[in-house]
Amino acid sequence: MNAPMPPVKPAFHKTNATRVTLAHGGGGKAMRDLVEDVFVSAFYNPETGAMEDQARLDPTPELLNGGRLAFTTDSFVVDPLFFPGGDIGKLAVYGTVNDLAVGGAKPKWLSASFIIEEGCEVETLRRVAASMRQAADLSGVAIVTGDTKVVAMGAADKLFVTTAGVGVIPPGTDLGAHRVRPGDVAIVNGFLGHHGAAILAARGDLALETDIASDCAPLNALMEAVAKAAPNLRAARDATRGGLAAALNEIAASAGLRIVLEETSLPLKPDIRGFCEILGFDPLYLANEGTLVLFVPPDEAEAALAAMRRVPEGRDAAIIGSVTEGTAGRVEMKTLFGGSRIVDMLVGEQLPRIC
Amino acid sequence: MNAPMPPVKPAFHKTNATRVTLAHGGGGKAMRDLVEDVFVSAFYNPETGAMEDQARLDPTPELLNGGRLAFTTDSFVVDPLFFPGGDIGKLAVYGTVNDLAVGGAKPKWLSASFIIEEGCEVETLRRVAASMRQAADLSGVAIVTGDTKVVAMGAADKLFVTTAGVGVIPPGTDLGAHRVRPGDVAIVNGFLGHHGAAILAARGDLALETDIASDCAPLNALMEAVAKAAPNLRAARDATRGGLAAALNEIAASAGLRIVLEETSLPLKPDIRGFCEILGFDPLYLANEGTLVLFVPPDEAEAALAAMRRVPEGRDAAIIGSVTEGTAGRVEMKTLFGGSRIVDMLVGEQLPRIC
Repeated sequence: MNAPMPPVKPAFHKTNATRVTLAHGGGGKAMRDLVEDVFVSAFYNPETGAMEDQARLDPTPELLNGGRLAFTTDSFVVDPLFFPGGDIGKLAVYGTVNDLAVGGAKPKWLSASFIIEEGCEVETLRRVAASMRQAADLSGVAIVTGDTKVVAMGAADKLFVTTAGVGVIPPGTDLGAHRVRPGDVAIVNGFLGHHGAAILAARGDLALETDIASDCAPLNALMEAVAKAAPNLRAARDATRGGLAAALNEIAASAGLRIVLEETSLPLKPDIRGFCEILGFDPLYLANEGTLVLFVPPDEAEAALAAMRRVPEGRDAAIIGSVTEGTAGRVEMKTLFGGSRIVDMLVGEQLPRIC
Repeated sequence: MNAPMPPVKPAFHKTNATRVTLAHGGGGKAMRDLVEDVFVSAFYNPETGAMEDQARLDPTPELLNGGRLAFTTDSFVVDPLFFPGGDIGKLAVYGTVNDLAVGGAKPKWLSASFIIEEGCEVETLRRVAASMRQAADLSGVAIVTGDTKVVAMGAADKLFVTTAGVGVIPPGTDLGAHRVRPGDVAIVNGFLGHHGAAILAARGDLALETDIASDCAPLNALMEAVAKAAPNLRAARDATRGGLAAALNEIAASAGLRIVLEETSLPLKPDIRGFCEILGFDPLYLANEGTLVLFVPPDEAEAALAAMRRVPEGRDAAIIGSVTEGTAGRVEMKTLFGGSRIVDMLVGEQLPRIC
């Protein structure tokens, strides 16, 4: 009797290189060996098979089930590559997973493209690939296709990673700023500012020691939990570059409504308060990589909050404000002292290469 | 009576900047203005709407119709950004369109992510975006989502573009090296080596004047024509980095078969012959960006060839060899003088940053 064979991981070519050279970008044997050894092997998945130049996806009728597809991309150029709480690989996976999740999609498949500076250590690439694989497993996605390019020393800074993602939007799901209504409640899933502060501290040019770690985390499980608990969930946005302020301003502008925050309600840890006070940063503008703001009708706010708090990424969820008529696109904050200030979108950013 | 309103292109924010600064990467107003003015506006499509952080795709049951999806990505780091016959934008669109097409997919949706060096001229970005839009229109795809990052001067070389693409594989289509059989005929769609030679010449450090232009072109119409004419089309591969030699070696290795080329049959223009003779390049290893090799059973070779020649990109199609039993993975060439040589895969490449 023949039992079905267990899937066997194919034998991939190996590289002996310790550093990447221009030959590794040339489409020849050196590239094949590096790519198979470092990336294809790390991302191998018995279900989806080995990563290919072109992946074939099966949105089976059961999976698609009358739904739509979501498609997104982001490049990651974070400096340094490794930082407390994460690294460029984890960021590249969760960043794209989260972009899909906040749009109401279930993330399924990722592509990963690497631009590598000549001289980059192969061990660095292995660490990044292992981190990406772990992040993909934890968020339930498969990295199914990719590319690598190598540029001469000085033409890039070590490593840039671009991911794209495809997910499935369940039928009937329609999240977006256009659905936000006056009276809706704004909820964030946790503490603000940790990613931005961690990156800044990791650059090592602050005369300050801190153990602040990035909040880098996948938000798809959280989004699924909220969507179940609050069927009229309106919109969600991850508060990455530009921080919570940018996310709120974009929503307010698209919805043509005003958002009013309560400063006393913002979830801020003492170390972030201290960090911002000493260095003159505003935590509303610090980047986050595992933090989102979402909008629900008032009668679903408690259910949404409770559902979020049952998921690890939502343990510290808090209602931070609400939506009102008034100057379209304006975000205001009621301050600790009873005043009110406008939370505008910055022109630039507080610091470059944050993600 | 209300006639339906024609779609109105939304009013996008404008930028006054002439050069990109770090502020343009910060997630604030400067970034929004640059992205909307340069990219969102260029890629706007009344059917798919404005490019969004997350695009929603509709693989309607009619379109998907029991088929599968294809997903691919590539980064482009070509130097120089503009060259005879193309530019990094055109390359980034056609590269991904062609990756999908050679797998048997109908390319539909593209993402585009830009890593921009501080100081890059905004006019350069406008030219690249316009070129991408034109290439997308000519190949029937929409650029539906994207991202931009800015890095400090010296941390990247002007501009890198990463595209990902999603396409639909019609039901019953299964192209791949695993389907190649002994006796199959290998056909290329046109002249070899033009992209590699054009890039090398455009770098300006050759003591040589030439008007060789890149072959950069979309191959999806060609692939559709062949698939109709030769229902048993086995496999196709675009002969990009590593040239025709790399594509053939990959197919031979995956199929576990031998491929024998006829040197006299290789389509080579006199200027490419001359270029290679003077500079010591082998045209089999020069990159192409609008050239593919495909495999069909012998009784469908004439029909495939005729169908290719009816499409502009296949006007100069030629049978170049065939598949035989023998040393698995070996590519051989019968030379002009009746001898035979092994066409191995190179270790690296003849020149870096070709695409």
